[in-house]
Amino acid sequence: MLPISQQTLDENIKKLGVASEDKISIRETVRLANMLEKASGEKFIRFEMGVPGLKPPQIAIEAEHEANLKGLGAIYPPVNGIDELKIEASKFAKNFININVPPECCLPATGSMQGCFAAFMVANRTDAKKGKTLFIDPGFPVNKAQLRALGMEYYSFDVYNYRGQKLESKLEEFLSCGDVSTILYSSPNNPSWINFTDEELQIIARMANKYNVIVLEDLAYFGMDLRRDISTPGQPPYNPSVANYTDKYIILLSGSKSFSYAGQRISVMMISPAVFNSNYPDLLKYFGNANFGHAMIFDALYTLSTGTTHSVQCGFAAILRACNNGEYNFVNDIREYAKRAKFLKEQFLNNGFSIVYELDGQEPIGDGFYFTVKYPGLTGTQLIKKLLRYGISSIGLNICGSEHTDGLRICVSQLSEDLFPVIKERLEKFHNGN
Amino acid sequence: MLPISQQTLDENIKKLGVASEDKISIRETVRLANMLEKASGEKFIRFEMGVPGLKPPQIAIEAEHEANLKGLGAIYPPVNGIDELKIEASKFAKNFININVPPECCLPATGSMQGCFAAFMVANRTDAKKGKTLFIDPGFPVNKAQLRALGMEYYSFDVYNYRGQKLESKLEEFLSCGDVSTILYSSPNNPSWINFTDEELQIIARMANKYNVIVLEDLAYFGMDLRRDISTPGQPPYNPSVANYTDKYIILLSGSKSFSYAGQRISVMMISPAVFNSNYPDLLKYFGNANFGHAMIFDALYTLSTGTTHSVQCGFAAILRACNNGEYNFVNDIREYAKRAKFLKEQFLNNGFSIVYELDGQEPIGDGFYFTVKYPGLTGTQLIKKLLRYGISSIGLNICGSEHTDGLRICVSQLSEDLFPVIKERLEKFHNGN
Repeated sequence: MLPISQQTLDENIKKLGVASEDKISIRETVRLANMLEKASGEKFIRFEMGVPGLKPPQIAIEAEHEANLKGLGAIYPPVNGIDELKIEASKFAKNFININVPPECCLPATGSMQGCFAAFMVANRTDAKKGKTLFIDPGFPVNKAQLRALGMEYYSFDVYNYRGQKLESKLEEFLSCGDVSTILYSSPNNPSWINFTDEELQIIARMANKYNVIVLEDLAYFGMDLRRDISTPGQPPYNPSVANYTDKYIILLSGSKSFSYAGQRISVMMISPAVFNSNYPDLLKYFGNANFGHAMIFDALYTLSTGTTHSVQCGFAAILRACNNGEYNFVNDIREYAKRAKFLKEQFLNNGFSIVYELDGQEPIGDGFYFTVKYPGLTGTQLIKKLLRYGISSIGLNICGSEHTDGLRICVSQLSEDLFPVIKERLEKFHNGN
Repeated sequence: MLPISQQTLDENIKKLGVASEDKISIRETVRLANMLEKASGEKFIRFEMGVPGLKPPQIAIEAEHEANLKGLGAIYPPVNGIDELKIEASKFAKNFININVPPECCLPATGSMQGCFAAFMVANRTDAKKGKTLFIDPGFPVNKAQLRALGMEYYSFDVYNYRGQKLESKLEEFLSCGDVSTILYSSPNNPSWINFTDEELQIIARMANKYNVIVLEDLAYFGMDLRRDISTPGQPPYNPSVANYTDKYIILLSGSKSFSYAGQRISVMMISPAVFNSNYPDLLKYFGNANFGHAMIFDALYTLSTGTTHSVQCGFAAILRACNNGEYNFVNDIREYAKRAKFLKEQFLNNGFSIVYELDGQEPIGDGFYFTVKYPGLTGTQLIKKLLRYGISSIGLNICGSEHTDGLRICVSQLSEDLFPVIKERLEKFHNGN
């Protein structure tokens, strides 16, 4: 029966032993929702996890199986990637971002998680006097956990008040300290679904050039800003990227969301040739070679996992080839998420909520994988707890480096169409109860 | 035409730009052999790479495909492993090592490379006053590169002169410094194929207990010491392990060699429950939790790659289940390597070579994946170069932490039976030419 009573909620929070009064981690939310599902007998609506809700492309399944039948499962993968994947990734960069990254600079990793870990490992050690990362937040909290695990430090700021031209002086404030090696952001952004405008990307590039900083551009949601359809190979519009404005970049292209391939753990790092071919003597403290590309392949990726699963490299190569050839339109598949977001936003707005991060420049953000909401008079943690009583599970922006501690992240991926009337009813009940 | 002239060899070495006069890395050897193959028109015999030469088990190929057809490729794998793999790994530990490791303490990693990286990350940070690894060498040089990449330090010694009872005081010499957190060795050993005797494993365990050190036991060649057939589940003899004598261990069980599954990058860490459940406050500097198991799963394995490829977890679970049920005898498959080793050793011994590491206690080492050779009057590097002239490629023990710098490692995996007469002829030609 919904709503669950305040007492049942409190008892379960106590039982779980939530670490902090003000913060609930994603894992704690998931477990709490599981416990409350049991207690109430009601299936919860899951907005908390950023996991794909679609099937992986059949073409990948077939390519993996073919690779396995050929016996590749017994053979160590080339650490720098199979030729086919490198070539298709290079073509993909040209076809969909309109940048030139030669195959040798396209390296597979075991998901963008590993790609980012490896990028921190190498890029943050190119200059012994630097070593910090600057996060343009909000962002994925695990990237900060990666730095902590590596014993590295970071700066961060919430971009909310520094959109457009204001971004430049804000970046300069941190970069002028002289100890930053890398800037990291995601665009489309997790959790807020903002996208940097071309003006903003140019500012980031200009600052990277000025302060000799490598930009780690996390394209985890590649092509998923559906306001522009980038899905025709070799034709504008292209997916925006800082790589159009600087040669100091590493693009992290993930298979997980855009290609519904999260289970198989694969991504491609597209490393600017200018970075890839540079020598940084300070790398020799940690690696066998001062050359960036060499250290990345034979020290970082090699010591992390001896490369990426062989059959999965074949699967991802098949996906990218089909995109390059115009045989597979990955954007069509992910339009499903936009449909869900459009419906959901309406329901939230109809019931007293508002959107936290709502504009890119003058333009409203697109409908996609995530959006952010708040409700008048409640902190983020209060809102999470109250929504749980109505069978709705979500996470707070306070764990994502946002200053908007009243905001929640809503991930639409698990909301299949049969749940539309259910969420409508629950949100109305929630709003009427307040 | 073989032998290749000294001049051609020298020219190619110069062209490649080998970094050191005294050392040739594996990668340099591979490239040099490729160049000389081209120059001579003769196919080389490849002893340099420790890669499996058999097909992966059909049962794994089928299980992977089934998982993919079910759509698991789109779903993030559980970072601590799918239940089925954890359960089968726990049973495997009981059936083939005769130890009790509950499923929760069995964690998949993206190959033992990642398993070892994660083990260093966590175990070497359990005590801020410690932090070094002690390598019982010879060993796999990349494990040292992992520590370097992590900014960690190590001790090492060649065990050749410290077998049996002598091992105790040698270990104590290092451990009594008080700054060692972990001991790492492989048994069967890469490169020497020695196996620690039960007496030696007991000594290692005793020292680990005395100095509160975690033993990282790399079982990359599990069951491949064919002097004892450990392949019947639940029946002695069992695979030897230090875990029989101490509760301070992490076993690294690799899929790569014993199960011919190297391409798919999977291993299982079997962590002693005593370690897994311990709290180490010093971990909090790097991780979100002081509990070893929690830090290993949600900090190390999560930040390294968000777990291990979903379908491959299903594939490895299927292999282990078939072993546990007595339906698949993995030792029968790898007997092929012993056949090759037996033949090859004879050829080397007939032609003036001798075995470097030849005994475990009083017993000659078994026939398996590797063995070591030397030739009178030549250093290791001289011998590598001379053998290259006869179309034979190998690596030196000097890059593996061995003091026997005249020794070479011979890996038999690539020597299929049709090459038997070829290697016989080349070794005879080599010997007669000296």
